[in-house]
Amino acid sequence: MSESIDHTLRGSWTPSGAGAAPLSAHAVRWLRQRTGLGEQLTPAVPPSLIEIPEDVLPQAAHAELVALVGAENVLTEPGQRLGRAGGLSYSDLIRRRRGTGVTVPDAVVLPADPGQVQRVLELCVRHDLAVVPFGGGTSVVGGVDALRGDKVAAVTLDLARLDRLISVDPVSHVAVMQAGMRAPDAEALLAAHGFTLGHFPQSFERATIGGFAATRSAGQASSGYGRFESLVEGVRLATPAGEWQLGTAPASAAGPDLRHLAVGSEGALGVITEVALRVRPAPVHSRYEAVILDGWQSGSDAVRALAQSHALADVTRLSDRDETEVQVELSGGMQARVLWALLRARRVHEPCMLVLGWDAATRRELDDRRDATWRVLRRFRPVRLGDKVGESWKANRFSGPRQRDTLLDYGVCVETLETATHWAGLSELRSAVRAALLRTLESEGKPPIVMCHLSHAYETGASLYFTVLAVRDQQDPLGQWQRAKQAATEAITERSPGRAMGRGTITHHHAVGTDHKPWLAGEVGPVGVRVLAAAKQAVDPTGILNPGKLVDGE
Amino acid sequence: MSESIDHTLRGSWTPSGAGAAPLSAHAVRWLRQRTGLGEQLTPAVPPSLIEIPEDVLPQAAHAELVALVGAENVLTEPGQRLGRAGGLSYSDLIRRRRGTGVTVPDAVVLPADPGQVQRVLELCVRHDLAVVPFGGGTSVVGGVDALRGDKVAAVTLDLARLDRLISVDPVSHVAVMQAGMRAPDAEALLAAHGFTLGHFPQSFERATIGGFAATRSAGQASSGYGRFESLVEGVRLATPAGEWQLGTAPASAAGPDLRHLAVGSEGALGVITEVALRVRPAPVHSRYEAVILDGWQSGSDAVRALAQSHALADVTRLSDRDETEVQVELSGGMQARVLWALLRARRVHEPCMLVLGWDAATRRELDDRRDATWRVLRRFRPVRLGDKVGESWKANRFSGPRQRDTLLDYGVCVETLETATHWAGLSELRSAVRAALLRTLESEGKPPIVMCHLSHAYETGASLYFTVLAVRDQQDPLGQWQRAKQAATEAITERSPGRAMGRGTITHHHAVGTDHKPWLAGEVGPVGVRVLAAAKQAVDPTGILNPGKLVDGE
Repeated sequence: MSESIDHTLRGSWTPSGAGAAPLSAHAVRWLRQRTGLGEQLTPAVPPSLIEIPEDVLPQAAHAELVALVGAENVLTEPGQRLGRAGGLSYSDLIRRRRGTGVTVPDAVVLPADPGQVQRVLELCVRHDLAVVPFGGGTSVVGGVDALRGDKVAAVTLDLARLDRLISVDPVSHVAVMQAGMRAPDAEALLAAHGFTLGHFPQSFERATIGGFAATRSAGQASSGYGRFESLVEGVRLATPAGEWQLGTAPASAAGPDLRHLAVGSEGALGVITEVALRVRPAPVHSRYEAVILDGWQSGSDAVRALAQSHALADVTRLSDRDETEVQVELSGGMQARVLWALLRARRVHEPCMLVLGWDAATRRELDDRRDATWRVLRRFRPVRLGDKVGESWKANRFSGPRQRDTLLDYGVCVETLETATHWAGLSELRSAVRAALLRTLESEGKPPIVMCHLSHAYETGASLYFTVLAVRDQQDPLGQWQRAKQAATEAITERSPGRAMGRGTITHHHAVGTDHKPWLAGEVGPVGVRVLAAAKQAVDPTGILNPGKLVDGE
Repeated sequence: MSESIDHTLRGSWTPSGAGAAPLSAHAVRWLRQRTGLGEQLTPAVPPSLIEIPEDVLPQAAHAELVALVGAENVLTEPGQRLGRAGGLSYSDLIRRRRGTGVTVPDAVVLPADPGQVQRVLELCVRHDLAVVPFGGGTSVVGGVDALRGDKVAAVTLDLARLDRLISVDPVSHVAVMQAGMRAPDAEALLAAHGFTLGHFPQSFERATIGGFAATRSAGQASSGYGRFESLVEGVRLATPAGEWQLGTAPASAAGPDLRHLAVGSEGALGVITEVALRVRPAPVHSRYEAVILDGWQSGSDAVRALAQSHALADVTRLSDRDETEVQVELSGGMQARVLWALLRARRVHEPCMLVLGWDAATRRELDDRRDATWRVLRRFRPVRLGDKVGESWKANRFSGPRQRDTLLDYGVCVETLETATHWAGLSELRSAVRAALLRTLESEGKPPIVMCHLSHAYETGASLYFTVLAVRDQQDPLGQWQRAKQAATEAITERSPGRAMGRGTITHHHAVGTDHKPWLAGEVGPVGVRVLAAAKQAVDPTGILNPGKLVDGE
């Protein structure tokens, strides 16, 4: 790609625009052919043209904040505020690229430690200020939008200075970290002690420990290492009702496990300031490989068999035919021609790529685990693509957001959504969501590519992750996606007598934020919403914490 | 044991008294020698002498209950009420054996299905009646004591008629069961479909699915199959605020995981009526064996190494020297002499028995898993006792409560308590709790035997389960134990700068009930108690649900 594109501040994954993944000429041709994409590029407006509302933080509150955390940690310049204005959903990016509708905080406050976070909250209660906790800013559900609600002003609480590794217990395999620590820093610090978290979501390069906990994050290797909530041994939160510390043991029967209320609380029930996490010895050996299975059903049967016989690789990721095709075509014309020829020769009708990755402490453990996987997998007649494809997937596993930036420049509507359900209903749910997305976007004259993968398998079910590519509606880009998302979520949440297991969850690892809030009552029931509202009321009686996200107080 | 003993209704594990495990002459001699136990037996008073308070259920409420569930399902006879009067803690049993202080409900109601449970709750709200959910009645923390609180009368809700297996999904490995189903019935019904829950706590023979969920139960094979909460895919509760259904997928990021609020709610946040559970293929092969390790530290290091290298057997149970000695001596004089001689010859100074049990679908899987365990275990120089001792442990694994009945007849104070903490502090915590129990009971002139085992291991820590045997204080048997329990819990919850990891949980799998309630705020913090109280207020605004247990409303 030779055209030069301006990247606005946080209008893209990489604030500077550096590192946006280019598309090959073949990929662009293929995409134009498949979606009807035009030749016109759609660059973002320059930052100076983004509408930034006046800062309405009262002078007295500003002065108190300065006294508390220091003037250099209370940011009110438009550029600084814009740098923490919302997350990185397609809608967030489109708003910034167009320069309108961006939710910009009135101030950004950077407390030094958990004690300061607690005092900032108390200050915000006194001045009736909304508080939006902010880690890596990678929310794709509106979770860090600087909404003010009915408060006087919105303060974004950037936890970047809470970046300490508090302790590593090499006997118990527990590390305590502050919430603002970035995932790569956490891994680097743990590596010095011989440990890893093993938590690698696509947001890895920017996301924080606190953000992972607040959103019940799942990583690409979570089939092996467990979802983030399963790593959480303890958690410390600041709340308007006082500090809250949870976790005395790996397991307890002391009533409900309130760690599971703190984890996933999305800044609405407190600000997570420290997390005690299970760590594992850093792997010495690893191996990634890829195979092709013929058909989605066969592929998901294979992954189910692996999950139910405890033979999953740490990374186990099955792409459907469309995603397999896109991955291959975007990687280049030559590779694509070779692979399709191979698969034709092997009479594979519906090629679905399965990426497998194992980590291990010893060569023997690696071999044993890989053997266990293969003993099960063999029954499903996989076509091996070898380690090179697997390693290439690993090398590019965080590049999705960068590729998205490029696609946005090309005028593509590109967004993802995810769900999970039990195995018996999985394929049906995939078909229903696909159909809803295809129908909605086609009916508006923009036939999409809808791709799906299964990346998190459990004994009883699995996740489904959809990626949509379509020509962007330049007049109404937000509405175009909202209508598609609405239709998909209705397909996910519908209770139909014809659907075996009923329905899926509204989100498997993206959290609720603003975007899924309308469907929360369907997920946890009216009683569930009432309980959450009561919990919020108990810890945050005036409702300063992240208004408009997850749940409202009573 | 030749003496004949009367067993009162629920004054023992087996209501009829049949099946109480006799002690050998050697065991009785050894026990008398070790504890100073006298010759006098202490039989229970006959049921006719148990004080049963008048039933104070208002006539109008009684009539409505009869209209709702049928006369045969509203029990008000003294014997019927006594049959559901509290649980099976040492204090419960002592009160019944003495005939005083038993908390007897005013009526026992047996609803037919979840809908009737919901309507019974609504009726009880109208008539201001306390509702005590009752499954197997095996609580050892006062969880099913028929406390009335500030309500008009106490109704025990016996869920025995909710005993249906609703569905088995052989693809997803999920079974939906009603809450009142007994564990052995659940296993028998699942076995017909080729599945098992793999949940075998000592209360197995009597406990129910709903009780397991309400108390976050852990079973003897939970190192392999997972604690009960990890089996729960979904849960349905009746609450005064309406029916509440949770669980759409194996995992979700839709805010806090409220299943973890329902699980462990001990009847205080709703009555669990149905549970969707992960099941596993019933094992075809199993093997149990026992080894001796020299020293508690070496033993717990071995179990830690197994947990941290994912090589745990499904059952992994390490007894300290005292528990090993008691197990051996109670099993008979000849075995004891042979074993002690063997261990002397092998120069074992502090014999600690480790029982290991593996389940598997195939012989190969069994061998592979056993090999994996042994590869780690070998480093700790175990002395093999062979399969016979392991199989004998398995055969007797539910006999503890029966043996307790016999010990109670002999005038022994016999009770257990449990905790869990992280590995780094485990041995220190064991020493502290042991010391507290020894000190307290010795100071009252009744030097105890304090035994401990580690039966649930996690990557980051493990449980500790203590059993105490001492001569019973016939004047003040309840106070004797309460003082010991108080001292032990203080040792568990104490935050001391000299203690590496601080402290343990107030209960690893016995729940809170009445007995642990005073320490809940220390466990989850004042903010945690406030959140639980708010949740209770939201689902149970008038506070009818299980008053006095877990937490009070706001």
